[in-house]
Amino acid sequence: MTENQLNDYVNGVLAGDRRWIARSITLVESTRADHRELAQRLLAELTPHAGKARRVGVSGVPGAGKSTFIEALGTHLTGRGHRVAVLAVDPSSKRSGGSILGDKTRMARLATDPNAFIRPSPTAGTLGGVATATREAMVVVEAAGYDIVLVETVGVGQSETAVADMVDTFLLLTLARTGDQLQGIKKGVLELADVIAVNKADGEHEMAARRAARELAGALRFLRSGETAPVLTCSGLTGAGLDELWKHVVRHQEGVDLAGKRRRQQVEWTWALVRDRLLARLHEKAGPIAPEIERQVLDGSLTPSQAADRILAVFPGAAGDL
Amino acid sequence: MTENQLNDYVNGVLAGDRRWIARSITLVESTRADHRELAQRLLAELTPHAGKARRVGVSGVPGAGKSTFIEALGTHLTGRGHRVAVLAVDPSSKRSGGSILGDKTRMARLATDPNAFIRPSPTAGTLGGVATATREAMVVVEAAGYDIVLVETVGVGQSETAVADMVDTFLLLTLARTGDQLQGIKKGVLELADVIAVNKADGEHEMAARRAARELAGALRFLRSGETAPVLTCSGLTGAGLDELWKHVVRHQEGVDLAGKRRRQQVEWTWALVRDRLLARLHEKAGPIAPEIERQVLDGSLTPSQAADRILAVFPGAAGDL
Repeated sequence: MTENQLNDYVNGVLAGDRRWIARSITLVESTRADHRELAQRLLAELTPHAGKARRVGVSGVPGAGKSTFIEALGTHLTGRGHRVAVLAVDPSSKRSGGSILGDKTRMARLATDPNAFIRPSPTAGTLGGVATATREAMVVVEAAGYDIVLVETVGVGQSETAVADMVDTFLLLTLARTGDQLQGIKKGVLELADVIAVNKADGEHEMAARRAARELAGALRFLRSGETAPVLTCSGLTGAGLDELWKHVVRHQEGVDLAGKRRRQQVEWTWALVRDRLLARLHEKAGPIAPEIERQVLDGSLTPSQAADRILAVFPGAAGDL
Repeated sequence: MTENQLNDYVNGVLAGDRRWIARSITLVESTRADHRELAQRLLAELTPHAGKARRVGVSGVPGAGKSTFIEALGTHLTGRGHRVAVLAVDPSSKRSGGSILGDKTRMARLATDPNAFIRPSPTAGTLGGVATATREAMVVVEAAGYDIVLVETVGVGQSETAVADMVDTFLLLTLARTGDQLQGIKKGVLELADVIAVNKADGEHEMAARRAARELAGALRFLRSGETAPVLTCSGLTGAGLDELWKHVVRHQEGVDLAGKRRRQQVEWTWALVRDRLLARLHEKAGPIAPEIERQVLDGSLTPSQAADRILAVFPGAAGDL
């Protein structure tokens, strides 16, 4: 890789060229050592041009209609002059040969919108790896001039937390269900939400959605002191409520110290990478001996503290005088 | 330390001698390397005799009356023939010279109960260190024949999670407050709770407590699908509801695979110790260079990924081919 080639990437992205954007994201997603090194040089060049977008995470209970919602919101926003990038964090995703057919089919209208750029999740890997690639893809699309980045999380494992840690505003979609309950909201996810919307508030479901929103708002106020996330209704199908919802997203971002939040996210991300890589290396090195040590903990012949020391002994310089 | 001295500790604890129990806990709390080594040998001897107690975590919002509650519950249980040990996890605690005057004053009646043993939190340290000492103290009191261990958490930082990870049942005390809200419940703590009790359900407050319990139960059912924690009322002052509450604790323990839960806790504890020690060592080694690297992340001259590699380079064998 020559300086010239790096310049091609940089200039292509800064010019907003979709092919170079896609190639750059493929580069940051690569796990090959030489690609990683080039990717970091590329990101260092792009970072000064990034950071000007609104970053919004979108999460939702299964069946909440996330794809339809993102397509409707994205189209709404491009219609108002914005350029919208859609990224995703899905540690369970599998793609063959970089095909993004799945996402293009899911969001057919947005996929052909010249002011939108849709990129599916990096393929299956550790959550840390997938989240890192998505954060780096965000730098690419921001440098390319997209002023709104929607990051979808599919709700596997801790992916909501990973997304909340990389966006300015975290949006949770839910549904009015039969009966009294808002089933399916994962533990802890409500607490990440900055804005909550009961989706599918259309036709015969509209009243139920409104009632669910009121009840959810009441339950949140009951359980939490201080300010709670606003609970709105919307419809990805008809577009109803999207304008109001976006106003709440903007209002949320105006109400927080965004620059400070992002700086904290950058530093936290650095340490998260340090931990991920250190622990990945530990598990790699301790892998062969771990099952036997765990067995000895289970049968009581090693205390957890003794077992921890044995495991740490695989790491030169880490055990010993601890 | 000779074999004989170790035997004195072991025999003293197994005989239920309070002085040897106290000395053994002091030993497991010590951070001196020679003490740590002896403590691990002691714990290895005691572990086969431990594990027969019910382990109950007790958490509560500020002002919920935790001390009065624990004293009342402890006295209720010793009155029914149990032997009750009270431990605590408080990473913010400071003690001078091992005085437990504070706790003895807080729980004056239980402190003089021959069938109760009260031990305050190990003194201030990292949560990991404090929690480890408390887990090890639990082995000591169980080996000494206490069949119920109450572990108090004061709600600093992540201490509730640390306690939930070492007990069979996690009990959350709360209060009926004025108005509509159950203020003060920390984020995430509701989700740890296996049993919830609205305390101070006595005199003029009884009806408000009952109403708060009903409303909290309703809010929990609304927000969560599946089984939710039972919400009861009780009074640490009058003892009302303690019998019923304890039945729910026992019922909870009969409803879960306790042996499996404890085995998972042991193995998870081992890995938590590994992570704590590894990260402590990392922060110690990276301490001198971290501020400058963080500065470079903030001003954009290093990407988080590059910064992470620099930090990891302090660890021989941890960076490099990652």
